[in-house]
Amino acid sequence: MAHRQTYAQRAAKHPNPAAKALLETIERKKTNLCVSVDVTKSDDFLKVIDLVGPYVCMVKTHVDIIEDFAPTLIERLQELSVNHDFVIFEDRKFADIGNTVALQYAAGVHKIASWAHLTNAHPVPGPGIVSGLAAVGRPLGRGLLLLAEMSTKGSLATGAYTEAAVRMAREHRDFVVGFIAQRRMESVATESVDPEEDFLILTPGVGLDTRGDGMGQQYRTPKEVITEAGCDVIIVGRGIYGKGDNVDVQAVQAQAERYRAEGWAAYLARIQ
Amino acid sequence: MAHRQTYAQRAAKHPNPAAKALLETIERKKTNLCVSVDVTKSDDFLKVIDLVGPYVCMVKTHVDIIEDFAPTLIERLQELSVNHDFVIFEDRKFADIGNTVALQYAAGVHKIASWAHLTNAHPVPGPGIVSGLAAVGRPLGRGLLLLAEMSTKGSLATGAYTEAAVRMAREHRDFVVGFIAQRRMESVATESVDPEEDFLILTPGVGLDTRGDGMGQQYRTPKEVITEAGCDVIIVGRGIYGKGDNVDVQAVQAQAERYRAEGWAAYLARIQ
Repeated sequence: MAHRQTYAQRAAKHPNPAAKALLETIERKKTNLCVSVDVTKSDDFLKVIDLVGPYVCMVKTHVDIIEDFAPTLIERLQELSVNHDFVIFEDRKFADIGNTVALQYAAGVHKIASWAHLTNAHPVPGPGIVSGLAAVGRPLGRGLLLLAEMSTKGSLATGAYTEAAVRMAREHRDFVVGFIAQRRMESVATESVDPEEDFLILTPGVGLDTRGDGMGQQYRTPKEVITEAGCDVIIVGRGIYGKGDNVDVQAVQAQAERYRAEGWAAYLARIQ
Repeated sequence: MAHRQTYAQRAAKHPNPAAKALLETIERKKTNLCVSVDVTKSDDFLKVIDLVGPYVCMVKTHVDIIEDFAPTLIERLQELSVNHDFVIFEDRKFADIGNTVALQYAAGVHKIASWAHLTNAHPVPGPGIVSGLAAVGRPLGRGLLLLAEMSTKGSLATGAYTEAAVRMAREHRDFVVGFIAQRRMESVATESVDPEEDFLILTPGVGLDTRGDGMGQQYRTPKEVITEAGCDVIIVGRGIYGKGDNVDVQAVQAQAERYRAEGWAAYLARIQ
């Protein structure tokens, strides 16, 4: 299975440009840490990203929560992406019919497809959501992650729902590059599995110091996620930068390095 | 069941201010038509709404596809809402964890909670999504619709998923006022049904002239939706205004009136 190989081996073979870039970045920087930057002011957004940039393979954004958003913010984000060498993942969780998601992805004030290497979608509307997003993103070399599972309490993305998400991904392997999930997916819906498939597993709900946020989010450690469950990227948010305003530079850098080191050690333990 | 009563009878009893306003508007204007305005330019957006305004109880927006969005657009939309007497429904399809959807609903450039009487969410993350949105919207008198079903081909919102959505709504009746669905929900998850419950059923995928859009959307007639399936509001998009640019004023008005009349006749047939 894909996760028994090194990130470098997988990068060499991956057909999607965004997934390949992510795997190469992970190998080059020796980090499988993605920081989720959930702040509402542009200055805080850029400051947190600039601080964590050296420690991450990817930055996860919610561009639609930034109150003073302007196109120049995207230019600054892209500069940081180049300077610090990370991939950009807009966590948009598209969840509408094909025609609508194509417009939401390409248009609006945020123009997500023009700058986000990766984005994600819920499979709930059926395969039309993948076709709609692929029509916009594939020509740009983008990649899509499907939400096969969620880490929240009472999630409905389980059982037959997860199986359907995996089948949907397998039918669109030129654009769907992986899953937001809590575990590997090769053992799901096995009648459609291809031994050569390599879906990236990105896993939110990772924390070293807490088990929940009181609003339904639940946490696991990097070792549980990377070594034991075989996931590829750990997604960490406020565990690294707190509220995002008046950040303590050294504390944020220390936390980012702590998660990077834990995530990488968990990966090395896995491929031994 | 709720749909055997008149809209006026239901308005008089409904505890949620946004749902009550919608039911009163439907009765006052004798229209259960909602027009979905899926255009990407502010001028087209306002022009279509101004044309269809007299014929609708509600306007459904996708504010995130408008390329030249500015806060003044919302002021104009609110003026049209007052002048033409319709409710505003932002079809955002929230689908993230509680903490994130609260920010997406309240903040960002679009500040949805400040102007949309109704919005909607997918139940897939579990009940935390409702709590997160309610924390923002309930103090403002807003209402939430849950996507219990979808009209697209291959939708995963079926069976146990739909049942879980209905249970989740019943546990949050002060804020969840109804469903995006294809039929009434009183017969779903009957162990938790309250004979007094009145969930509004808003139904997309309504068309008089076509059966599909080639991207997974499937269509039914107002009679099928309102009379036979017992739904409350028909949602119609391009069937009324075409592409939205260079609109033929009389043609758009004629189509809006045609759907209004069909939807109202279907309602009268139901309550006979």
